[in-house]
Amino acid sequence: MDPNRFGYSTLNCSIRRTLDIVGERWTLLVLREAFSGVRRFEDFVGALGCPRDVLSARLRTLVDEGILRREPYREPGRRVREQYRLTEKGIELFPALLALLQWGDRWTADPIGPSVEVTHRGCGAPVTMTMGCEQGHGQLSARDVTAIPGPGARKVA
Amino acid sequence: MDPNRFGYSTLNCSIRRTLDIVGERWTLLVLREAFSGVRRFEDFVGALGCPRDVLSARLRTLVDEGILRREPYREPGRRVREQYRLTEKGIELFPALLALLQWGDRWTADPIGPSVEVTHRGCGAPVTMTMGCEQGHGQLSARDVTAIPGPGARKVA
Repeated sequence: MDPNRFGYSTLNCSIRRTLDIVGERWTLLVLREAFSGVRRFEDFVGALGCPRDVLSARLRTLVDEGILRREPYREPGRRVREQYRLTEKGIELFPALLALLQWGDRWTADPIGPSVEVTHRGCGAPVTMTMGCEQGHGQLSARDVTAIPGPGARKVA
Repeated sequence: MDPNRFGYSTLNCSIRRTLDIVGERWTLLVLREAFSGVRRFEDFVGALGCPRDVLSARLRTLVDEGILRREPYREPGRRVREQYRLTEKGIELFPALLALLQWGDRWTADPIGPSVEVTHRGCGAPVTMTMGCEQGHGQLSARDVTAIPGPGARKVA
């Protein structure tokens, strides 16, 4: 049976499809590390403390999905190895990570404050995600918005 | 061993803590449904198509974490039952869901377009998440920002 809400399928929801790709345990943390400049398998292991076989599987999925790409590198006197770099598709996941970070900073951080601050390279000011509409109304909250069926909405019985 | 990146622990990262709460399979989809107005167990089952025992566990976690709250309701002639409502802590997760939705709309939607559109109740215009800094520089991308140790950063060897 096609799962549905108020008569519309939820199977082709973009949140669901996104989570089918990045919603597995460790995947978003692997991407967090990639944004922090980590590129090499051993450095991912050190930063995450996750099992090596899990990390291998997550990196493979991210490469298969075009979110990371493999790039050869060679240290002097060593054989050629591969490192992992974010693609454009991967880079565009940053806002989702930042939104999760912001929520965590507000609701889960130690009393002393967050462990990380995200700042604008240009001016050094703190960076935040904000919700706004195309007419220029900004600083919206979930209460200010609503969801309507889009062009891809599928009616189900 | 404390996992670390460039000398700082990654254990108290707010992304990690957030994912420890909402990063399990189905949890963010349960919240998506809550934002869509779903409140009752049977309606969550119908909208998600997920196993009932998994849904029970996810709802329990979300209540324990203060993201959903239970509220009694009674239909005429029936016994009192419980429904699930978003708390303020829960409502503030909407930007993270919207950021995931936006990425999915761009990279995973059907050619015909997204299944859902999020609009501003006030004016009907499409709503988006944007990244900006406190100095007013807007429309930033991941390339424009950097992360620095915050007050809660923990140095490790």
